[in-house]
Amino acid sequence: MLHAVVMAGGSGTRFWPKSRRNRPKQLLRLYGDATMLQQTVARVAPMVPPDRVLIITGADQAEGVRAQLPDLPAGNVVAEPCPRDTAPCVGLAAAVVAKKDPDGTMIVMPADHVIRPDEVFRKTVRAAVSVIDADPTAFITFGIKPTRPETGYGYIERGEPLGAPEGIELHRVKQFREKPDRATAEQFLAAGRFAWNSGIFLWKARAILDALAEHRPGIAATLDRIAPALGTPDEAEVVAREFPTMERIPIDKAVMEKAPNVRVLEVIYDWNDVGDWRSLSALVDPDANGNTTQGPVHLVDTTNTIVVSDGDQLIATLGVDDLVIVQSGGATLVARKDQLDKLKGLVEGLDKAGFGSTL
Amino acid sequence: MLHAVVMAGGSGTRFWPKSRRNRPKQLLRLYGDATMLQQTVARVAPMVPPDRVLIITGADQAEGVRAQLPDLPAGNVVAEPCPRDTAPCVGLAAAVVAKKDPDGTMIVMPADHVIRPDEVFRKTVRAAVSVIDADPTAFITFGIKPTRPETGYGYIERGEPLGAPEGIELHRVKQFREKPDRATAEQFLAAGRFAWNSGIFLWKARAILDALAEHRPGIAATLDRIAPALGTPDEAEVVAREFPTMERIPIDKAVMEKAPNVRVLEVIYDWNDVGDWRSLSALVDPDANGNTTQGPVHLVDTTNTIVVSDGDQLIATLGVDDLVIVQSGGATLVARKDQLDKLKGLVEGLDKAGFGSTL
Repeated sequence: MLHAVVMAGGSGTRFWPKSRRNRPKQLLRLYGDATMLQQTVARVAPMVPPDRVLIITGADQAEGVRAQLPDLPAGNVVAEPCPRDTAPCVGLAAAVVAKKDPDGTMIVMPADHVIRPDEVFRKTVRAAVSVIDADPTAFITFGIKPTRPETGYGYIERGEPLGAPEGIELHRVKQFREKPDRATAEQFLAAGRFAWNSGIFLWKARAILDALAEHRPGIAATLDRIAPALGTPDEAEVVAREFPTMERIPIDKAVMEKAPNVRVLEVIYDWNDVGDWRSLSALVDPDANGNTTQGPVHLVDTTNTIVVSDGDQLIATLGVDDLVIVQSGGATLVARKDQLDKLKGLVEGLDKAGFGSTL
Repeated sequence: MLHAVVMAGGSGTRFWPKSRRNRPKQLLRLYGDATMLQQTVARVAPMVPPDRVLIITGADQAEGVRAQLPDLPAGNVVAEPCPRDTAPCVGLAAAVVAKKDPDGTMIVMPADHVIRPDEVFRKTVRAAVSVIDADPTAFITFGIKPTRPETGYGYIERGEPLGAPEGIELHRVKQFREKPDRATAEQFLAAGRFAWNSGIFLWKARAILDALAEHRPGIAATLDRIAPALGTPDEAEVVAREFPTMERIPIDKAVMEKAPNVRVLEVIYDWNDVGDWRSLSALVDPDANGNTTQGPVHLVDTTNTIVVSDGDQLIATLGVDDLVIVQSGGATLVARKDQLDKLKGLVEGLDKAGFGSTL
């Protein structure tokens, strides 16, 4: 059976002041009527009933996650006591799935990606499931056709073609490449055989646990100590004790780069990882002046600007260009768009500056 | 005796969103611990007791004015039913002063100028009073030494020197010049014999009423109809009926340009007419990056920017330059500094845009 594992961690800095420590991006309604987490779960709902949806989140955010997904059994929201990157997270999820359903297949999805349309995503999932049904030892990663020489993503180089289940091209993975420099990213884009690693994976829970045992025995041993407690009254206590001891490493590096049987599906849905406020322009159609707005705003001689108000404040702009202006819950950010990479640093400085209440 | 007439009208657009219809600039605490109106009254307090202070203000603002000046007799705050420029305003004030004190001298001051230090201002007033005591038919205007080729002010050309009472140079006025174009303003600046007309005047109430009778008989006739009601229960009703019928004209044009006996004192105090938010940088010392801030703010990579928060919102800025950011009472303005001349238009558009509640 197919289980959905949603990775819903995140520090809540890149969408400050709307995102906060206990309300990171995936818990926000950035566009549309539902939060990104709710949209992620709804996207697979026709294939995966609530009792087979598992959310791995941070301790600060578990309460918010449960409130947003009232149909999920409370035990299906698992709080990591501290962030340990994706290998321990995926391993813990695989242990939970395998205990309930030893032959279970799991799809791992970040909670904070925009994917449209939902039907095409589900078609891609069906294609991946058919591949795993035929070869239960395989690992599938969903690759995105690159549209720019992005240096912030990992890349996957395609190898031998393996057909096109459901019309979606499948290849062996030749190699994973970490975030490249600009020149390398341009080569990857020009070469035409590289895809972005979107962080969506599909495999048998048993297969990933076996691979961890082979490539990361330390993590596997810890998971073996956790497994007996899963689903029992001891679960929280044992997870709290064991989880922080695991090695901090991404699943790509821990397993995917080493496993011999990795395949990439070249997805054909629209994808946006909603990296920061600038992504909003891709999700909400800008006006004729290139402005993207939400809430009460009044723009005069303003171009290419993102203006978001949560409703507490009217935001009026005059003669400005290329800014991001966001008001939410007692704080207002005014940033030049091309400086938004430094927002994390700004947010980290708030506590020291005496504005910790806005974190 | 000396009476102080404070002109406290104003539409409250140039300091939006802090200034509002019922709370224009002079009622704001823009810098220091008191509002501009309170500072204006305090500046002459050692020379003029509260019962000889008269405030002429707008109907929307009379309540705010009385609340800020609790020591003034309520009758000393006179509300113009509608704005009629300065000649009717000054004429009405002169009628009020003359009725109480037929030989009274009056100083006319806008409520929204920054003048420092107060002692030097009072020395200038003493100099002006001594001139009027010697020649009760004279009119004195306070001129400011120009520091830039400003096109937004009126200019006064000096004529024959008349000494220096209290060490402050006095001249006959050769001519008044309306707001000049840039080239003319540069000539005025270079010539060295022009002063800015600061809108502060000192004269006998009787003298200005006589001059109005000579040069603007229509205004004088209306004032004659108002005078009997002043200080009686009929005052408000008669003012409301008669005031709006008066010609809309500045006192400079109505009288000063025509009267033969006008003198200019070249003041030596610091003066700033606080035209808009940009003036704040002259009143509050900027930091090392040229930023001027008030309230809870957190600035990163920000230069030459004015950031004001009334305390409801933390304002955080990132990588911006030359902006004006002001948050007050449910509205936030983000404007490019060099576009601030268009703020009036923005504010005028708020009603139509459905944001009339922020006016």
